[in-house]
Amino acid sequence: MSSKPSIPKGTRDFSPEEMLKREYIFENIKQVFRLFGYQPIETPAIENLSTLLGKYGDEGDKLLFRILNSGDFLSSVSDDELGKREYGKLSSSICEKGLRYDLTVPFARYVVQHRDEIIFPFKRYQIQPVWRADRPQKGRYREFFQCDVDVIGSDSLLNEYELIKIVDEIFQRLKIAAIIKINNRKILSGIAGFIGESDKITNITVAIDKIDKIGIEAVNAELSSKGLSSGALSKLQPILQLSGNTESKLEKLSKLLAESETGMKGIGELRTLFAYVKNNAFSCDIELDLTLARGLNYYTGAIIEVKAKDASIGSICGGGRYDNLAGVFGMEGVSGVGISFGADRIYDVLNQLNLFNEIKVSSTEVLIVNFGEAETQYALNIADLLRRRGIRAELFPESVKIKKQMSYADAKKIPYIIIAGEDEIKNNAIIVKIMASGEQKKMQLSELSAFIDEINSSN
Amino acid sequence: MSSKPSIPKGTRDFSPEEMLKREYIFENIKQVFRLFGYQPIETPAIENLSTLLGKYGDEGDKLLFRILNSGDFLSSVSDDELGKREYGKLSSSICEKGLRYDLTVPFARYVVQHRDEIIFPFKRYQIQPVWRADRPQKGRYREFFQCDVDVIGSDSLLNEYELIKIVDEIFQRLKIAAIIKINNRKILSGIAGFIGESDKITNITVAIDKIDKIGIEAVNAELSSKGLSSGALSKLQPILQLSGNTESKLEKLSKLLAESETGMKGIGELRTLFAYVKNNAFSCDIELDLTLARGLNYYTGAIIEVKAKDASIGSICGGGRYDNLAGVFGMEGVSGVGISFGADRIYDVLNQLNLFNEIKVSSTEVLIVNFGEAETQYALNIADLLRRRGIRAELFPESVKIKKQMSYADAKKIPYIIIAGEDEIKNNAIIVKIMASGEQKKMQLSELSAFIDEINSSN
Repeated sequence: MSSKPSIPKGTRDFSPEEMLKREYIFENIKQVFRLFGYQPIETPAIENLSTLLGKYGDEGDKLLFRILNSGDFLSSVSDDELGKREYGKLSSSICEKGLRYDLTVPFARYVVQHRDEIIFPFKRYQIQPVWRADRPQKGRYREFFQCDVDVIGSDSLLNEYELIKIVDEIFQRLKIAAIIKINNRKILSGIAGFIGESDKITNITVAIDKIDKIGIEAVNAELSSKGLSSGALSKLQPILQLSGNTESKLEKLSKLLAESETGMKGIGELRTLFAYVKNNAFSCDIELDLTLARGLNYYTGAIIEVKAKDASIGSICGGGRYDNLAGVFGMEGVSGVGISFGADRIYDVLNQLNLFNEIKVSSTEVLIVNFGEAETQYALNIADLLRRRGIRAELFPESVKIKKQMSYADAKKIPYIIIAGEDEIKNNAIIVKIMASGEQKKMQLSELSAFIDEINSSN
Repeated sequence: MSSKPSIPKGTRDFSPEEMLKREYIFENIKQVFRLFGYQPIETPAIENLSTLLGKYGDEGDKLLFRILNSGDFLSSVSDDELGKREYGKLSSSICEKGLRYDLTVPFARYVVQHRDEIIFPFKRYQIQPVWRADRPQKGRYREFFQCDVDVIGSDSLLNEYELIKIVDEIFQRLKIAAIIKINNRKILSGIAGFIGESDKITNITVAIDKIDKIGIEAVNAELSSKGLSSGALSKLQPILQLSGNTESKLEKLSKLLAESETGMKGIGELRTLFAYVKNNAFSCDIELDLTLARGLNYYTGAIIEVKAKDASIGSICGGGRYDNLAGVFGMEGVSGVGISFGADRIYDVLNQLNLFNEIKVSSTEVLIVNFGEAETQYALNIADLLRRRGIRAELFPESVKIKKQMSYADAKKIPYIIIAGEDEIKNNAIIVKIMASGEQKKMQLSELSAFIDEINSSN
């Protein structure tokens, strides 16, 4: 085989440089999650298809990666079935397992399966890859990471508040100016009732969710095609175009939806949440957005979405409350609220805004030049000394020309070189070359420790 | 659906407690890898089957998890083919992709694919899960993590030395007393030549590898069944039973293998490596083990295996040098050496030896009791204050009975509780309860900072 090997469409390799940038994002996110008392779990990449199927709608089912059963996968398939070539049906006979599609359904499965060991309210985070057999395109991958944080087993709106606080803290640390948009599914239900189309709530929320992408005209057309009466549509317009600040919007809305118990409950929830927000310090902008619906039909209360102010990238974070997520696995009435951070989009935002430049890339700090067998033990002693002090150090493994070793240091952006040839060793000395300035300092080996302290304190 | 959901055989969920223990292992391993100048990469879970097939032998091919092609996976399969029900052949027609089986082959693929961007010698580490459709059994999983560290593009034995040093440093940090066993594949080749069975080198090394598991008798029987002459077998016995220290073993061996160029090269390599070892400090025992072969046929030089002294668990780490790993992807003559840490086995060793007890589990440090709406803002201020100081803090989300909130703190092992009811708030005060002693301290809110410093300095 001599053609260059490749990886499947929509998947990626991460180079050392990309890894360090990604770890910077994940570390910041994890630290904040922990600061708020959330704890990590992990679930397997492979789930039973019975766990995954039917949870993401028909479209989602098609996007699941299915794993072929081991051995003779055809053993339970009759000739008759095989001959029909119904690939959808057949795939269920020959595959029992599939790859994780998101972190929410595995989390619900985890909660039900481990309900007896879990301490409720259960505050967990989970950072793992998910897989979708989507058409790969710019910024959309078939394997990508989700960072989810959820609390399950508590109805309190303090949880919503806390998640908004977490979002705020994370983007402050990452130096991304962000807008947090908030809505409430109960208000959307109230609106559907108010316009007399309660049974079309799903169509209405899915359509509203697209306003940003396709515009209000197209949304109206779509709603019309779904059977919304023109009366209902015209009743809907003033709501879609409500203006003013959050308080005045909620005020107007509470008059329009006065008759709707659900709608008024949603308005009450938002009033409580925005009161918490008003009384506490935030660095992000936080605003009510009544057009926010986020396609997902399992939200029952708060809906949250975050966008970066200075980058033209879609939402970088989103979530909401779901009152009965675990119900599908037989555990009723356990309410949860959670949000998911899009690591890839956050990466793109940091790249676009040149915010990675501020990260100190934690690669090797000192390269020790290799002069050959006779000088090796002296060099190994230096490497030991450095590493015992926590300094990332390498001895170049081959005694090739110094120029080649220097260009290795240059390419790896190693800031310090230690040179210790025959002459230095005789005098128990070393030469330290500082790559940024080109300056060389000769010192006794015993002085290296003090020099290291200098390096450390300047970092 | 009301039956309890489950996960596929051989896969696992990791609870918060398990996650913290696993992160303790991974963090120690990563820190040491970085200290030696190694950098992280990641490759996709999904690889093209053309990359994976034929790299792990026929047995390995059978253990690959294959992913069913999306959409009509039968479209390119003729009725005729389908009717034959040859599932092995058919699986190649309906699956193009598979799950990563180890980290070595994806690494070789990565090196060839990115050869123009890589700085050689390339020192990389990779910590990711791999999947094998193995029969699940105690301690053997279908999804498990590997932690690999390799350097590619350098023949120097300093790399072998450095890897041994890495192993030593990691197990020292994890407080596991370990034995590092070392052999050299060239010596095994020399032996095969010396007994006149060079063409059976694979059978011989695979069999020798099993001595620990099945005993010398069974190994001899196996070799005999593979066609080794009784003359060859009897020539082999003294070698398998060589005694004495490393130096005397190498001395005796150099006489037996004097005629074998390859064998003598292997002996030379080991002499160099053991000289480095002798001249430097190690906490692990390091010894020559001529029976060490590690089944893998791609090793060409050093072979390394590590066992925990005080736990009855197989090898916890192993690896070696492979001179032409990337050759299979069309990049010839690039030599590499690497080792792989078995995270699951290390976990089991730490559990067996009660070494996790020493870890400070980094969960929530302070729980603030929830007294209700009127006290919430005061509590939120306290939470803010604590988190700004880096203290992991939670406000209990519901204003339920204090007893219930206390038992939550107890179950989550939260060491400090802050109580701030109506009376405390009036006086700008708080009560801190120290869970370990049951002691309660009343203080002004302004004194909390000093108290936090106390907590911090005692950690």
